[in-house]
Amino acid sequence: MHFKVRAATKEDCKEISRMILELAVFEKMPDQVKISHEELERDGFCQNPFFECLVAEVPEENTSKDGFTVVGYALYFYTYSTWKGPTVFLEDIYVMPEFRGNGFGKGLLCKVAKVGKEKRCVRLQLSVLDWNTPTRDFYAAKGAQDLTDSEGWHFIRFDGQNLDNLANEAPKD
Amino acid sequence: MHFKVRAATKEDCKEISRMILELAVFEKMPDQVKISHEELERDGFCQNPFFECLVAEVPEENTSKDGFTVVGYALYFYTYSTWKGPTVFLEDIYVMPEFRGNGFGKGLLCKVAKVGKEKRCVRLQLSVLDWNTPTRDFYAAKGAQDLTDSEGWHFIRFDGQNLDNLANEAPKD
Repeated sequence: MHFKVRAATKEDCKEISRMILELAVFEKMPDQVKISHEELERDGFCQNPFFECLVAEVPEENTSKDGFTVVGYALYFYTYSTWKGPTVFLEDIYVMPEFRGNGFGKGLLCKVAKVGKEKRCVRLQLSVLDWNTPTRDFYAAKGAQDLTDSEGWHFIRFDGQNLDNLANEAPKD
Repeated sequence: MHFKVRAATKEDCKEISRMILELAVFEKMPDQVKISHEELERDGFCQNPFFECLVAEVPEENTSKDGFTVVGYALYFYTYSTWKGPTVFLEDIYVMPEFRGNGFGKGLLCKVAKVGKEKRCVRLQLSVLDWNTPTRDFYAAKGAQDLTDSEGWHFIRFDGQNLDNLANEAPKD
């Protein structure tokens, strides 16, 4: 099936927002999504954006059953390893179920790798849920390392009141 | 013991570089460090820096046994959650062993939380090695969640030839 991968524009944010929710449903945490398309527009399409995004688009003759032409996305940003340097972090990658198996996901992933390398990134990182076997197998087949399994890295998060408490205890300037 | 936490300057990069190596030795992966202080200067103190950094500094009368006054650091950057929005990610936090137990680590962590909140961040995230029990306990005591344990998130990495292969397979524009 023909498709193209292109940089997202501000006008894509409604579609991206729709797919963020679809992905959260798949990840079994739909009630976690608090970000609106207006916030995506503000945070991703400003002077110092928090993220960049690619979309996968099909021609008009291949729209989804609900009439969508933007049918996948990859949202990423740049992080930094104090051991290796610039890194591209793939926060979300998603293809609508009816378009899977056509190379859309691979196209998005490879394009993020290419964009990252153009910015001198020497690593592409992401996180994946342990029960998401098809995706974990896909990454493994492409040569990815699972650093939680191999080195024992765990993800830690502070938020809500815990984060406020830390900030309130910060030493004075 | 008196100390202050302040934003790092370009002139601190030699000291930060020294402590990056000390931290890697503690993490049992010293041969992984490939970043020089010149690269830190370039990547962190340019127009669109890849990271920000705080240092913990002691007065001249409390220098380390080797004569250092910059005795800890916290290196962080901004990431983005498509569910919650801006996030501050703490890549490294380190205090020289002879200064531990004086609140330097807490001071650095809390200041990162404060700086993050000033940038609208609603989360502070980091990763930690599973065998690093004192540090994991410290985070847990401050209310952090271990998302690898509670939700099953794993860290995945592409680098080297695997990353090149992805980039080379990217769809043409």
